[in-house]
Amino acid sequence: MTSTDSPPQFHPRTSHYRQRVEDSFNRQQAMQTLGISLDRVAPGEVDLGLPYQFELSQQHGFIHAGVIATALDSACGYAAFSLMAEDAAVLTVEFKISLLAPAQGERFVALGRVVKPGRTITFAHGEAWAQRGDERKLIAQMNATLMAVVGRDEIRG
Amino acid sequence: MTSTDSPPQFHPRTSHYRQRVEDSFNRQQAMQTLGISLDRVAPGEVDLGLPYQFELSQQHGFIHAGVIATALDSACGYAAFSLMAEDAAVLTVEFKISLLAPAQGERFVALGRVVKPGRTITFAHGEAWAQRGDERKLIAQMNATLMAVVGRDEIRG
Amino acid sequence: MTSTDSPPQFHPRTSHYRQRVEDSFNRQQAMQTLGISLDRVAPGEVDLGLPYQFELSQQHGFIHAGVIATALDSACGYAAFSLMAEDAAVLTVEFKISLLAPAQGERFVALGRVVKPGRTITFAHGEAWAQRGDERKLIAQMNATLMAVVGRDEIRG
Amino acid sequence: MTSTDSPPQFHPRTSHYRQRVEDSFNRQQAMQTLGISLDRVAPGEVDLGLPYQFELSQQHGFIHAGVIATALDSACGYAAFSLMAEDAAVLTVEFKISLLAPAQGERFVALGRVVKPGRTITFAHGEAWAQRGDERKLIAQMNATLMAVVGRDEIRG
Repeated sequence: MTSTDSPPQFHPRTSHYRQRVEDSFNRQQAMQTLGISLDRVAPGEVDLGLPYQFELSQQHGFIHAGVIATALDSACGYAAFSLMAEDAAVLTVEFKISLLAPAQGERFVALGRVVKPGRTITFAHGEAWAQRGDERKLIAQMNATLMAVVGRDEIRG
Repeated sequence: MTSTDSPPQFHPRTSHYRQRVEDSFNRQQAMQTLGISLDRVAPGEVDLGLPYQFELSQQHGFIHAGVIATALDSACGYAAFSLMAEDAAVLTVEFKISLLAPAQGERFVALGRVVKPGRTITFAHGEAWAQRGDERKLIAQMNATLMAVVGRDEIRG
Repeated sequence: MTSTDSPPQFHPRTSHYRQRVEDSFNRQQAMQTLGISLDRVAPGEVDLGLPYQFELSQQHGFIHAGVIATALDSACGYAAFSLMAEDAAVLTVEFKISLLAPAQGERFVALGRVVKPGRTITFAHGEAWAQRGDERKLIAQMNATLMAVVGRDEIRG
Repeated sequence: MTSTDSPPQFHPRTSHYRQRVEDSFNRQQAMQTLGISLDRVAPGEVDLGLPYQFELSQQHGFIHAGVIATALDSACGYAAFSLMAEDAAVLTVEFKISLLAPAQGERFVALGRVVKPGRTITFAHGEAWAQRGDERKLIAQMNATLMAVVGRDEIRG
């Protein structure tokens, strides 16, 4: 499967793709409110981080699945956005998340990777990992469909 | 389709299903942090509400898709939980959300409905609506799979 | 939920939408090979039928989940296509299917309904029912995303 | 992501897991009808193959997305089944498939891989590739949830 193939090499359409991702991420108030940080941007790849916060827990004390989904959605969305044209904004069409294990840990990372970019539709894959000390565990997987939106004034970046 | 059939009638296995849902919901810190309220509980049906909050917006000022997903995940999870046995806790196995329209509005409701309950696996359907004045618009749909968990000490309710 | 709302009214963009669906369906060799029939076409709505066939069974004698998915994918795709413009072809972007019960029965129907049409992206919902005599049972639900494709010579209809 | 980690090592619970998969696969009439072959079985891994057949095409001459989904569903299901206990049967709970590219090619392979096995619920990932001569192209990805079923007489293997 993917592990036996070399990773796809994507070429961004703008030289300042990183700045574009950072600017848009900084406008996502939800990221600040939830304490989610932008840790890495590469062409078609975005890593986000999230410390454990009791305020974001579900009834058993784990991080709420929806919060993990929020981080993965942004990771996938910005991975797609990093490859989009200058005049495009990004919207999520749909995503599916499989919750492999409860979100227990000290810190969580949400990794978004473009699987196939397209002029209109981009497919991305996300993984969320829980970290405790030196250990890490895969807790969720996402498949997301993103759309490039052009020429709608209220949707930019 | 469903609109031409009478709605399914579900019978809760405990007389205090409503109290059980309320108690568990109140332990979900994420619901309080995000300002999500428990508006209605019936057997197999849970409605949640969420006012517009700029703090939860994405880059275009709409509510972040992940926040809508969080509300729908809880709505579907508690709809399933309302039909579960006394000793069962509920965990989300997976969900898929289709984002039909941007989450623009003054207030949002997340409706969770059990489609098929089961001893172990319950299927639920969710809808999110945006409200502005007297108007409302369907903005998202979810299909979720929930699991009843019994006998794990760290997972109760 | 949907059952309390009047069904959406969709207006086809071409007067011969029904003929377009029939012509395209008849070109789907897979439908003939699997014995799937086109039973009803309305704006944004398509019903397909499938008799039980041992040749399409999985290891327990039920109809294979993939065959049910095939019927639902075509039902959702043609429901979307019935609302598309004259020059558009339809492709499935993705779908998710929840298998509520084993596909046991004498006959199966796959109902595709548009939830939200769009110029490029259309969202549809599907339901599969098993019939035995006068009884019927909901066995599967699908959420699908369809795309209108214009101007690609190899993809028409 | 997965490409930077060593692949998971799974240990089958029965010594004759391969025989169990082969026996069950051979009972799936749909596999024979569709011309799908069982090409490889390893603990948590199953590869299926499918030659191009016009009889399984959609309206543009590509293999129908539902047929690709059928192969991936079986690949994921048997990958899960290869790790299940002696008395367990396997049923698909749900799956989601993203159709990255049209199914054009001479031959197709459907790879099913267990992501996380469990006593009741197993998560699997699938990939479908189109082959033409020496070239191959990723055309679809699946995320599937499988369930181990024990003690139901009509569902064995």
